[in-house]
Amino acid sequence: MTQTLPTAAVLGARAFAALAGLNRFSDEPGKLTRLYLSPAHRQAAEWTRGAMEVAGLSAHIDAAGSVQGRREGAKPGAPSVMIGSHIDTVKDGGRFDGNLGVVAGILVAQALRDAGIVLPFPLEVVAFGDEENVRFPTSLSTSRALAGEYRQEWLDGRDTDGITLRDALLGFGCDPLGIPALARPPASVAAYLELHIEQGPVLEAEDEPVGIVTAINAQKRARVRVTGEAGHAGTVPMRLRRDALAAAAEMALALEEIASAHDQAVGTVGVFRPDPGATNVVPGAVDFTIDFRCPRNDTLASMDRAIATRFAEIAERRGVSLAISPYSHDDATPMAEPLQEALAAGIARTGANLKARRLPSGAGHDAMAMARLCPAAMLFVRNEKGISHSPLEAMTEADAGIAIRVMLETVLELARRAA
Amino acid sequence: MTQTLPTAAVLGARAFAALAGLNRFSDEPGKLTRLYLSPAHRQAAEWTRGAMEVAGLSAHIDAAGSVQGRREGAKPGAPSVMIGSHIDTVKDGGRFDGNLGVVAGILVAQALRDAGIVLPFPLEVVAFGDEENVRFPTSLSTSRALAGEYRQEWLDGRDTDGITLRDALLGFGCDPLGIPALARPPASVAAYLELHIEQGPVLEAEDEPVGIVTAINAQKRARVRVTGEAGHAGTVPMRLRRDALAAAAEMALALEEIASAHDQAVGTVGVFRPDPGATNVVPGAVDFTIDFRCPRNDTLASMDRAIATRFAEIAERRGVSLAISPYSHDDATPMAEPLQEALAAGIARTGANLKARRLPSGAGHDAMAMARLCPAAMLFVRNEKGISHSPLEAMTEADAGIAIRVMLETVLELARRAA
Repeated sequence: MTQTLPTAAVLGARAFAALAGLNRFSDEPGKLTRLYLSPAHRQAAEWTRGAMEVAGLSAHIDAAGSVQGRREGAKPGAPSVMIGSHIDTVKDGGRFDGNLGVVAGILVAQALRDAGIVLPFPLEVVAFGDEENVRFPTSLSTSRALAGEYRQEWLDGRDTDGITLRDALLGFGCDPLGIPALARPPASVAAYLELHIEQGPVLEAEDEPVGIVTAINAQKRARVRVTGEAGHAGTVPMRLRRDALAAAAEMALALEEIASAHDQAVGTVGVFRPDPGATNVVPGAVDFTIDFRCPRNDTLASMDRAIATRFAEIAERRGVSLAISPYSHDDATPMAEPLQEALAAGIARTGANLKARRLPSGAGHDAMAMARLCPAAMLFVRNEKGISHSPLEAMTEADAGIAIRVMLETVLELARRAA
Repeated sequence: MTQTLPTAAVLGARAFAALAGLNRFSDEPGKLTRLYLSPAHRQAAEWTRGAMEVAGLSAHIDAAGSVQGRREGAKPGAPSVMIGSHIDTVKDGGRFDGNLGVVAGILVAQALRDAGIVLPFPLEVVAFGDEENVRFPTSLSTSRALAGEYRQEWLDGRDTDGITLRDALLGFGCDPLGIPALARPPASVAAYLELHIEQGPVLEAEDEPVGIVTAINAQKRARVRVTGEAGHAGTVPMRLRRDALAAAAEMALALEEIASAHDQAVGTVGVFRPDPGATNVVPGAVDFTIDFRCPRNDTLASMDRAIATRFAEIAERRGVSLAISPYSHDDATPMAEPLQEALAAGIARTGANLKARRLPSGAGHDAMAMARLCPAAMLFVRNEKGISHSPLEAMTEADAGIAIRVMLETVLELARRAA
């Protein structure tokens, strides 16, 4: 049956051609900027609907602005397999982030239709519109609409021009009152699969074109304030100092050490502001942020305890005071094991002698929202430079082709299991 | 002969009363702000001249705005002993910094005159006006005028209102053309003595009212730039990071360790700016400053080498690049040993069972400039909280009295030596 399917090379070429079409729509000339419900988003949604229809899907733009395509299977009304990602971007973003996942879904549907394959389940392809959450104060609102977790208060949120989400939806041609009805009934979706460019350098470093996501990481963020005593840089002897910067520097290194010692964890100090911040003054205080993530909630809790203990020990020894104020905490979203296995089978069936490399996702995705509704899994594609949210984001056509071929084989694997 | 001299308690009371008089002159109501050549400086200079004249000195305001007082000794024209400090302040400064040293000189002259003591040398008291170098881009210009190291280009420097130093001098009633003639002939001054509040916490920590300055520290400053690679805080694994902030934190701790390991040295990171400085981005670069000081030039050079070696080792190990750009380097100014001994004798002769605690000065003083002309030495007075350049600067009346009594005894010790 697979003899009639397009090769990875063909799929790669089709994907790059499709991306060239889709990515002509931008809110800023010379850059790829496509914010939720913008004119460029509207054009991209129409393009996506057209592509879906030509690929054999029936398609519409839903009440939240997502493009939904569907092709019925052998058993109408059976739980569907859904392939999705997003077509909104950050400002001056990359070409692959989100867009490639949508194109992949369309190309998989097209290949199956062209090969005359009737699946035992409906195949859906969805292009979400609000994954980057750049324009409005929302959180994955378009995929949460399908998952039944839309928050009505989002509609009153405003963009920087003062336009509410409600008005922006109306302007886009959507009916905000129709959003609650987008919620899919439990068990109506059997699997959500998302192909996405890796937003880091792991696959590039290990020379693997694709990887299977194990979980979307648990994450905690906190603001930390260390208060010592300001002093003259020339006149306060070292032994009499309570140098807030030295204490905070030691804490930054402790976080690095703790993250390195926990499985698949990361830890980052990104903001670091000494007060007063003058060459000839021993800093009296430092404000800094910590951000730490890992695939398991219990590992995150262990890191949290280690950080509290080590920071307190450093503060005590140096005679400075310490305040840790957490302001964000997300549990891990494990990806469904059976779908990870299906992706691994899909990888094996490409015959390309690829490893089924497993890795966590350090960034959020629509799959986080969909995992509340149904089993969900993700396939990462190698990012040539590991750079994300930037026009420097890069991928080879060959890798895109391999990844889409894996998605195709994975859908066929699920069909085999359903049969 | 000392029976007729005022006690430390009397000298302390006289000093605090005199400071209350002198410190009524401020450019900002409710604060003590007295910038060089300001209206408050002019009033303070007139007050100082009056105080000097009543204390038996002949006095005048010189071409650079300093107040010079002099009383001839037994041998007219013999090399003088000069007691000096400054009456300018920083913005919102403390009451003792500079002012106490000038008042001390006046009270010493008054006590000697009142006791009918004729010294074998002329006694001079000088109130310099440009020690803090807040208003114009100068460096100890009023004391350097006496030392013969005045730079003519300073006259073209401007304050933030665009007024040149030349015009400010003319407005003050000074003749800028007369400044070169202020330079004292070599060997015309036998000793320069300066009493100054300590600008740090050493004497307070050791419960000593006074200390003898061994040297004004050598000092070096540099800007450091560490460049690694920016990355997503969630998606770049720890082992693939080149985190500029972690590298810079390790360098800050290395500087602290190096300073602690060198005799009487200090080292400070005061400025620390990560780029981009966002919670969810691994910093790609950090700019920070280093400031390190110690009493000996060879120790400073050793620190400099240790810093270069350690920073390079850290950069190499972490795969980041490093640029150290020195922008300021001052040699140490050792204080004259015989004058340090005279101060120690003066301390012993107070009979108060005080230690002759030796300590370096981490900040600059007019004594740096005067040391280019003649033997110079300084006496530090305990700072109750170790706080400088702030209205919180504090000293007890008792300590002020002890310190002025030490100055008086030191002048008498020099008289004994000269006899």
